[in-house]
Amino acid sequence: LRTGFPEVIWGPGKTPEQIIQIMTTMARHSPVVMATRIEPAIAEQLEAEISSLIYYPTARICVLQTGELPSQGTGVVSILTAGTADLPVAEEAAITAQFCGFQTQRLWDVGVAGIHRLLSHRDLLSKADVIIVVAGMEGALPSVVAGMVDCPVIGVPTSVGYGTSFGGVAPLLTMLNSCATGIGVVNIDNGFGAAILAGQIIRTARRISSR
Amino acid sequence: LRTGFPEVIWGPGKTPEQIIQIMTTMARHSPVVMATRIEPAIAEQLEAEISSLIYYPTARICVLQTGELPSQGTGVVSILTAGTADLPVAEEAAITAQFCGFQTQRLWDVGVAGIHRLLSHRDLLSKADVIIVVAGMEGALPSVVAGMVDCPVIGVPTSVGYGTSFGGVAPLLTMLNSCATGIGVVNIDNGFGAAILAGQIIRTARRISSR
Amino acid sequence: LRTGFPEVIWGPGKTPEQIIQIMTTMARHSPVVMATRIEPAIAEQLEAEISSLIYYPTARICVLQTGELPSQGTGVVSILTAGTADLPVAEEAAITAQFCGFQTQRLWDVGVAGIHRLLSHRDLLSKADVIIVVAGMEGALPSVVAGMVDCPVIGVPTSVGYGTSFGGVAPLLTMLNSCATGIGVVNIDNGFGAAILAGQIIRTARRISSR
Amino acid sequence: LRTGFPEVIWGPGKTPEQIIQIMTTMARHSPVVMATRIEPAIAEQLEAEISSLIYYPTARICVLQTGELPSQGTGVVSILTAGTADLPVAEEAAITAQFCGFQTQRLWDVGVAGIHRLLSHRDLLSKADVIIVVAGMEGALPSVVAGMVDCPVIGVPTSVGYGTSFGGVAPLLTMLNSCATGIGVVNIDNGFGAAILAGQIIRTARRISSR
Amino acid sequence: LRTGFPEVIWGPGKTPEQIIQIMTTMARHSPVVMATRIEPAIAEQLEAEISSLIYYPTARICVLQTGELPSQGTGVVSILTAGTADLPVAEEAAITAQFCGFQTQRLWDVGVAGIHRLLSHRDLLSKADVIIVVAGMEGALPSVVAGMVDCPVIGVPTSVGYGTSFGGVAPLLTMLNSCATGIGVVNIDNGFGAAILAGQIIRTARRISSR
Amino acid sequence: LRTGFPEVIWGPGKTPEQIIQIMTTMARHSPVVMATRIEPAIAEQLEAEISSLIYYPTARICVLQTGELPSQGTGVVSILTAGTADLPVAEEAAITAQFCGFQTQRLWDVGVAGIHRLLSHRDLLSKADVIIVVAGMEGALPSVVAGMVDCPVIGVPTSVGYGTSFGGVAPLLTMLNSCATGIGVVNIDNGFGAAILAGQIIRTARRISSR
Amino acid sequence: LRTGFPEVIWGPGKTPEQIIQIMTTMARHSPVVMATRIEPAIAEQLEAEISSLIYYPTARICVLQTGELPSQGTGVVSILTAGTADLPVAEEAAITAQFCGFQTQRLWDVGVAGIHRLLSHRDLLSKADVIIVVAGMEGALPSVVAGMVDCPVIGVPTSVGYGTSFGGVAPLLTMLNSCATGIGVVNIDNGFGAAILAGQIIRTARRISSR
Amino acid sequence: LRTGFPEVIWGPGKTPEQIIQIMTTMARHSPVVMATRIEPAIAEQLEAEISSLIYYPTARICVLQTGELPSQGTGVVSILTAGTADLPVAEEAAITAQFCGFQTQRLWDVGVAGIHRLLSHRDLLSKADVIIVVAGMEGALPSVVAGMVDCPVIGVPTSVGYGTSFGGVAPLLTMLNSCATGIGVVNIDNGFGAAILAGQIIRTARRISSR
Ligand SMILES: Nc1ncnc2c1ncn2[C@@H]1O[C@H](COP(=O)(O)O)[C@@H](O)[C@H]1O
Ligand SMILES: Nc1ncnc2c1ncn2[C@@H]1O[C@H](COP(=O)(O)O)[C@@H](O)[C@H]1O
Ligand SMILES: Nc1ncnc2c1ncn2[C@@H]1O[C@H](COP(=O)(O)O)[C@@H](O)[C@H]1O
Ligand SMILES: Nc1ncnc2c1ncn2[C@@H]1O[C@H](COP(=O)(O)O)[C@@H](O)[C@H]1O
Ligand SMILES: [Mg+2]
Ligand SMILES: [Mg+2]
Ligand SMILES: [Mg+2]
Ligand SMILES: [Mg+2]
Ligand SMILES: [Mg+2]
Ligand SMILES: [Mg+2]
Ligand SMILES: [Mg+2]
Ligand SMILES: [Mg+2]
Repeated sequence: LRTGFPEVIWGPGKTPEQIIQIMTTMARHSPVVMATRIEPAIAEQLEAEISSLIYYPTARICVLQTGELPSQGTGVVSILTAGTADLPVAEEAAITAQFCGFQTQRLWDVGVAGIHRLLSHRDLLSKADVIIVVAGMEGALPSVVAGMVDCPVIGVPTSVGYGTSFGGVAPLLTMLNSCATGIGVVNIDNGFGAAILAGQIIRTARRISSR
Repeated sequence: LRTGFPEVIWGPGKTPEQIIQIMTTMARHSPVVMATRIEPAIAEQLEAEISSLIYYPTARICVLQTGELPSQGTGVVSILTAGTADLPVAEEAAITAQFCGFQTQRLWDVGVAGIHRLLSHRDLLSKADVIIVVAGMEGALPSVVAGMVDCPVIGVPTSVGYGTSFGGVAPLLTMLNSCATGIGVVNIDNGFGAAILAGQIIRTARRISSR
Repeated sequence: LRTGFPEVIWGPGKTPEQIIQIMTTMARHSPVVMATRIEPAIAEQLEAEISSLIYYPTARICVLQTGELPSQGTGVVSILTAGTADLPVAEEAAITAQFCGFQTQRLWDVGVAGIHRLLSHRDLLSKADVIIVVAGMEGALPSVVAGMVDCPVIGVPTSVGYGTSFGGVAPLLTMLNSCATGIGVVNIDNGFGAAILAGQIIRTARRISSR
Repeated sequence: LRTGFPEVIWGPGKTPEQIIQIMTTMARHSPVVMATRIEPAIAEQLEAEISSLIYYPTARICVLQTGELPSQGTGVVSILTAGTADLPVAEEAAITAQFCGFQTQRLWDVGVAGIHRLLSHRDLLSKADVIIVVAGMEGALPSVVAGMVDCPVIGVPTSVGYGTSFGGVAPLLTMLNSCATGIGVVNIDNGFGAAILAGQIIRTARRISSR
Repeated sequence: LRTGFPEVIWGPGKTPEQIIQIMTTMARHSPVVMATRIEPAIAEQLEAEISSLIYYPTARICVLQTGELPSQGTGVVSILTAGTADLPVAEEAAITAQFCGFQTQRLWDVGVAGIHRLLSHRDLLSKADVIIVVAGMEGALPSVVAGMVDCPVIGVPTSVGYGTSFGGVAPLLTMLNSCATGIGVVNIDNGFGAAILAGQIIRTARRISSR
Repeated sequence: LRTGFPEVIWGPGKTPEQIIQIMTTMARHSPVVMATRIEPAIAEQLEAEISSLIYYPTARICVLQTGELPSQGTGVVSILTAGTADLPVAEEAAITAQFCGFQTQRLWDVGVAGIHRLLSHRDLLSKADVIIVVAGMEGALPSVVAGMVDCPVIGVPTSVGYGTSFGGVAPLLTMLNSCATGIGVVNIDNGFGAAILAGQIIRTARRISSR
Repeated sequence: LRTGFPEVIWGPGKTPEQIIQIMTTMARHSPVVMATRIEPAIAEQLEAEISSLIYYPTARICVLQTGELPSQGTGVVSILTAGTADLPVAEEAAITAQFCGFQTQRLWDVGVAGIHRLLSHRDLLSKADVIIVVAGMEGALPSVVAGMVDCPVIGVPTSVGYGTSFGGVAPLLTMLNSCATGIGVVNIDNGFGAAILAGQIIRTARRISSR
Repeated sequence: LRTGFPEVIWGPGKTPEQIIQIMTTMARHSPVVMATRIEPAIAEQLEAEISSLIYYPTARICVLQTGELPSQGTGVVSILTAGTADLPVAEEAAITAQFCGFQTQRLWDVGVAGIHRLLSHRDLLSKADVIIVVAGMEGALPSVVAGMVDCPVIGVPTSVGYGTSFGGVAPLLTMLNSCATGIGVVNIDNGFGAAILAGQIIRTARRISSR
């Protein structure tokens, strides 16, 4: 556990047997082992074999926890979504952040087409340390959020949408072209990656203050 | 003047001589003749030949007015830009709308990265009949505006930006994928087309009320 | 019902339970609640739970009507298709417009490869207040229609086609590049959005003419 | 002169010296030698060296004719454009067809946004043997024409347009996706290739009818 | 039967009931009615209802012939494929051409990676009146064929391939960029369209010779 | 100076007069005003008017400093480039970071094709608080760096390259698809945005550690 | 067996019957016949008919060996993967190379996000004659490997990934834009083609030394 | 000179002063120093400063040779072009190969549209050790060549073409999708990279045969 983060297995393209084997091996040295992108049918097979395994269906994550979570201090990772269809990606981020030992705060369904809802949470946002903004379709939420806060924003485009959303390319381009500053973007649907980046940002605090 | 709109010439790829010839010919039957996308150097040559010609440099439009503007009634076309670099496209829309006989209202530089500026104009927006929203880079402004108003919004993506803006593709996709309803989109940089569509919308009022 | 339009739920990615829950909750305050993009199998489950629910299979829309439709006055929304395969998108537009309280007029299968059919409906077109033109494959119909009428045209590209239609990109580009003026374009297959935009246009017209 | 067509040199990327050398060499064996895509400045240099050379500025073609044109019989190649900006490509086709010995018929500016102009030429079209249709922007003209005639139609997309025309990709896709049958498409701006294909079609017809 | 060609129905997106209804209606006035892109399971249902219907499984075409084929004279349509996987598209072209009344000649599996096979058929090619060349993957066959013959070549890119073939885009681009002249290109997998274009070319002969 | 960062003007599309006017106005309230993407010829004009203006030619940034730099504490922003052609983008980041008050550390020319050079700087990297990695062509450097360190990495793809680099799309995709975790990506060539994001990260760290 | 390589059938789009027929026919003249891209269900059917057939499930290859492998001398083909999900493509390469008679050496899971693992195999790499590097996602491994060795490197991008990997386009672009020299790239997932190219490279040795 | 190849500088984006400085520094340790992509105007400036520098204008390469070329033994690098416009890229490959110490053989203008010319050089091809095939437009030449020979083929797509060649994407895709085996592809216009890969292939051959 060089990085102080859980071991994480990328599920797609692995058989249940392989996943079980890797997770149990890793669990010998690591207090938390996660597997991402696990469909319900696969999860059932894993749960049948590893009784202590917990499955988070929206996040599509399996967690095998055999020890204490690492302690990551006081920073909070806020996670926002534009729409409810973005939830699986947002929960992938949230669950990952939690099992990395970070405090999380969720705010769902604050897309820019109804800007008043977002504005009514201004206080909450201004207290955030790092904000993960998950949005599909036009993906405009990170721009508005980054313009309202001073902390780093991580944009996660999702493949939610149809037609010219091109599987998430539209929100990705929106985020990369944002006029607002302070936004870093990750791959389409990459909730996991956003959580780890958020974690690295918060841990920078510890490193700096320990000097 | 079948449509009650001025005759409009598309400037690119025409020589000054050709433009002069077409404009003067059209001016015999049409009180207003416009030429769009005219660069300053060409405009100078046209002005030297046609003394009554007026050039709007930001809009890059030449107008030859020999009669009265058509009267289009009470509707107002509001034109918004996200940034100052979007001005040429916005002015192309505004000048076109004016010479079609419509009242216009301009609101510049209300991009979503500083959402408070837009919100401070809430009143103005709620009184609009049709709103043309001109935006490059991430092009998120039409989504926010359409969510705030009940009138039709015309999104005009611009080629302002660099890198992944891909000459206007990024804001185009943003507008097409908007979660807000009531948005019609035109070609990249097509301020002229937006103005004509806005005009058609306002004229629908006359047609309906004259029944 | 701030906008005077029905509440509308986007179906994809929601479970039948979620849809039922949202629709019944909304129906307490809204005389009409719609859910779009509902596949037949899902619709059956919804109908089993909500007896008064009506399913429009071609439009793939479920409607829960508990009160009177809003009255939207005299304007007519005309809906045209290029081919029969465009029908689901066209019906999504038509049913949406109807439950928003607008009068609709349908004209199917008037694609440009047999221009005489379209021309034989010239009268009908000239009486329209706003025209929604639904077309896949080459998507040329909005151009021809917009050249024949003076009212606003809403172009809806569809994903009907194969090979280089690229899931609707070909007709989308055709519509955005139209030489005819007065066309606003919406996302591929977005019949719903076209109907709402058409509605906004007619309501703006009414608002103006009532001044 | 295996094919009975003139020798043709592709101008771009060749120095005036190289073009002169190749043309004069070829002229020893071939009654007609052409060079395409020749800019005016280059053409002037060629004319200074080869006095009998003729330059067609709109078509950007230089012709060195030292003998009689091949005789190609009775078929007529009709060439149509949607707009005036498509002329250079159309003239490239027309001049090429003429120097291959074919009769040509030109019809400019009959784009689909003003369908009545095209319809008024119905007779002319119905007498054509092969029709080259040159169109940029939305490129919808070949679809309408092919629906009106029974002869083969060759679609030539042009790079005329801006924004989402993507240098001719939009009209190319329109033509490839045409619902009308009987259309073969060539590369963007490839007037030359369209003329040769038209010529092959007429010659095949002659070959068949002479059996 | 204005064009002297069979009536043809595009199968995708139609129910068996709809196809049966349309085919039997059309068969009252047309000696040959075809339906393309019919999968085997659908074909079985059609055959159960219309006993005289014939299904061509490789071509995925159903034919309902109630009268004599139109007579189209002496021209021959040659059809070539690069590989065996291109057969369904090639047979779509061949069966269509046959039921339009044209003579056909098939030559399979003469791709450019084994150029000797193609060269051994030089004689056959030089006698062709119009050649349909069907090729996926790199799609280079039309270039080589067009360089060997003087008759028109119709390029049909197929979606055969993987990775960077991008569903047929790779062979499409190859054909559009061909250095050989005399090639017209149709949409990816459009065997039907190629056959009709070939037919129009051959019929041009009749029109010319009848003058 | 809400954010504690300098005011920054985006130079492209502004006249020298406009830039001078905006900078001098802003300088009344802000100790540091910057203008980015300023070409040398423009910079000369600015320097002629504002004597205290300093131009950084590689970074293409003009700075007007009238007060003290904000103090940002101890965190260090490290900036790496893959090749020397990436320098302008890297310097845009470095100069921006410096005038925001951050300490910077530069490391040029450590691209992955000569991995030993990067490895020899392992110590330097492990001490970084946030690393900006600037890379064009294949853009693989952020992946390798992020695998070596525990701090956040900001990937800046550049338009350096040719052919299939597609103006920076190739390195952008590389960075978004990185198997290494902890990378946030900004727009192509957006050195400025990377610096501001790096600054936000360090300031969030400080904010957390000061609780 | 002109090339001294086995006969190889491309499985997709062929029925089990066709594959059996082709393999048994070819086996009369060729000591080794292979079929690639064979799914397990199809393989089972083939094994039921041809008892001596061997199926390599990871490589998805069936081999029918009836004689001795060709002898290809001393060169070694090394095959590397970035991740475990790249295994099927890597095994397609490895099995193909082996049945062409080449010695192979496998090295799995040495992606650049954990560069130390690759570096620990420096010795092994420096002894390679030709290296096939299989990588999906960001596809950066060939760059690093080519920078470490003097022998030719064959880059095989895989479709492993999601979002902006675009089915393998991201690693393909990475490999084509590599700053390291000595890399030749093959189609996405084309392990077979990489093996044959590697074989041709090694056989060049024999040709040169036999002069 | 670890690799036994000359030091090579990539010219674009470097000032003449920088190039001179780097070349003269490198020349102290390396018998041959090359700079690629040098435009004539720059070359003149370099020649004025370094008298012994030689400029190859078609290849756009400057060479500073201060010692003997490395000796690379017997293998021959053959370089083919499809058309004359591909010459600059082909010469970049040829000059690079020569100054790496390899024997080269040039064959220009053997594109597939006139296949007979290529076939007449069958003997020459069959004697090659490695063949670099340079082709723009449709880029089909490598496929045909690879089908005729047993040695490795390196495909170099060029940006020669217009319209749908998309700056070399069309020939790139053709080469990647080739049905012929034994082709490795490099970046568009990358003659230099092709030469180095060819060199690595020949050196690997020598290494193997010297065991
Ligand atoms: N949902 C996810 N999205 C992106 N990367 C992931 C995800 N889950 C795991 N990973 C990464 O994939 C690596 C494991 O890949 P693997 O060795 O194939 O299981 C982990 O170290 C993570 O960095
Ligand atoms: N700026 C513009 N953008 C898009 N279309 C335009 C513009 N200006 C003029 N047009 C259209 O171009 C037509 C005239 O084109 P032309 O006949 O080439 O001058 C007009 O009828 C307008 O519909
Ligand atoms: N080089 C740059 N790249 C991206 N954004 C920039 C750059 N320089 C300035 N900006 C942003 O552009 C805004 C100013 O734009 P403007 O009002 O047009 O001058 C600043 O607030 C910055 O956020
Ligand atoms: N996995 C593979 N990937 C790419 N090409 C292949 C593969 N397997 C076979 N081939 C090629 O496909 C040809 C056979 O195609 P076919 O005649 O359709 O079986 C062989 O000669 C090989 O060149
Ligand atoms: Mg901010
Ligand atoms: Mg609204
Ligand atoms: Mg109109
Ligand atoms: Mg027709
Ligand atoms: Mg030919
Ligand atoms: Mg890291
Ligand atoms: Mg190397
Ligand atoms: Mg070969």
